[in-house]
Amino acid sequence: MPDSRDASFDALAAELGHRFDGEIKIGGNYVSVLRQGSLVYVSGQLPRVGDTVIAVGRVGAEVSLAEAQAAARVCAMRALALLRQSLGSLAALSQALRMTVYVHCTHEFTQQSEVADAASEVLHRVLGPAGAHTRTSVGVFQLPKNAAVEMDLIVAVE
Amino acid sequence: MPDSRDASFDALAAELGHRFDGEIKIGGNYVSVLRQGSLVYVSGQLPRVGDTVIAVGRVGAEVSLAEAQAAARVCAMRALALLRQSLGSLAALSQALRMTVYVHCTHEFTQQSEVADAASEVLHRVLGPAGAHTRTSVGVFQLPKNAAVEMDLIVAVE
Amino acid sequence: MPDSRDASFDALAAELGHRFDGEIKIGGNYVSVLRQGSLVYVSGQLPRVGDTVIAVGRVGAEVSLAEAQAAARVCAMRALALLRQSLGSLAALSQALRMTVYVHCTHEFTQQSEVADAASEVLHRVLGPAGAHTRTSVGVFQLPKNAAVEMDLIVAVE
Repeated sequence: MPDSRDASFDALAAELGHRFDGEIKIGGNYVSVLRQGSLVYVSGQLPRVGDTVIAVGRVGAEVSLAEAQAAARVCAMRALALLRQSLGSLAALSQALRMTVYVHCTHEFTQQSEVADAASEVLHRVLGPAGAHTRTSVGVFQLPKNAAVEMDLIVAVE
Repeated sequence: MPDSRDASFDALAAELGHRFDGEIKIGGNYVSVLRQGSLVYVSGQLPRVGDTVIAVGRVGAEVSLAEAQAAARVCAMRALALLRQSLGSLAALSQALRMTVYVHCTHEFTQQSEVADAASEVLHRVLGPAGAHTRTSVGVFQLPKNAAVEMDLIVAVE
Repeated sequence: MPDSRDASFDALAAELGHRFDGEIKIGGNYVSVLRQGSLVYVSGQLPRVGDTVIAVGRVGAEVSLAEAQAAARVCAMRALALLRQSLGSLAALSQALRMTVYVHCTHEFTQQSEVADAASEVLHRVLGPAGAHTRTSVGVFQLPKNAAVEMDLIVAVE
C-alpha cells in the first residue's frame, strides 16, 4: 500500500496535469537534496516541467498572479518529488521547516505572499500537519532562465 | 521576577513607542515560528505595528535610511516577540544564528548593511552575547505589501 | 603536514592571485561565522579582497559574466577562509550544505546559475566530495557597497 502522502502527491500531480516522476534536471554544479542529521536541504526550484520553465517573465506584467501561483505549485511539487526520490517516500519527512519564495515581479506587484501561498498549500495538501512551515517571500529583479518564481526548502526527517 | 531579556525587550519596546504584545498577524498559509530540535525558524517579518506596515516604498526614495533602520528595528522586535510567545520567555533562547535582511530600495541605495545593523542592534541589546548572529543583507526589487524591509531569523534554543 | 584541503585552498588562492589569510573585515554589527551543534553558518560574503570590492555594478552591464564568476570565486574563497580561521583547518568540515548566491544584475541577465557555478566549483575543488551542496541563486536589484555578487553558506562539521 503506498504511503498516503505519496498517494496525495500523485493525486495532486494528476490534478495539476504534470508528471514529476521523471529525472529532475538541474542546471549547475550542485546537488538537489542534501541531508545532514535530521535536516534536509532542497536546492532552489524553478517551475520546470521536463525541459520547460512554465512561467517566464515578470509577475505583474508578462505573468499573471494566477500563472505565478501555478508556477509556485510546480516549484513545490518539484521539491516534494526530489524529497520523495531522495528519501524513498514522503512518509520519511517529519516536518517542513522553512520555505523561501522568490518572485520575479514588476515594482508595482506587491502580492508576493499570495504567490507563495500556492506553494504553501501544496505542502499542506500533500503532507497534512507536517506541511506547516515558516516562510519568507520577497520580490526579486530577475531569476535564472527568466523564471517567474523560485522556491527553496528545508525539511526535517525522523 | 521577569527574565532580564524579557525586561530588556519591554524596555526597548517602550523606547521605540510600539507595543509588540498583541496578537501578531500573519498574511498567509504558514506559521510564524517552528522548532526542530535545537533550531527555531522565524518567518519573514515585515515592519508591521498592529495592522500597519510602518515603512512602505523604496529605501533611497520614499523611505530614508533612518526610516528604514526604524523599520528594521520593528522587524527584529516582531521576531523576538514571536520567539517570546512561542518559547514562553526569551530566556529559552541560547543563541541567535542567522538573520537575513531584505531591503526594498532604489538602485542607487547601497547601504543595505547599515539598515540591517539596526536589526542586529536590537538582538544585541535584548539578548546580550546570545544576540550575536551571522547575517546576509541584500537589496530587493519589491516586498510584500510594498514594505521597505523584511527580515527572517534562525535561532538556537537549549 | 598541512591538511590536503588547506593545501588545495592555498593552491587555489595562489592561482586566483589573491591572499585570503589576512584579517577578514566585516562591515556591520554581526559575526562572520557561528557554530551551533554540527551546523556552521557563514555570513553573506561580498567579493572583497583586502579593502576593495573587486566587482561593483550590475552583471550584464558594468560587470561581465566572466567578471561575475571571478567575483563569485572570491566570495567562496572568503567563506572558506573564514571557516578555516574559525575551525582551525578545513579538515574539520564534514559537508557543505547550502549556498545562496545573490547576483546584482540587469533585468536582461538570466545566467545567475552560471555565476553561482563558479562559487560551487571552488567548494568542489577545495573540499572534494564534501564540497557538494544545495544551492539557490537569484537576481537581486542591489547589494551592499554596489557589489556584483554576494554569497552565504551553511556547512556541517564533525
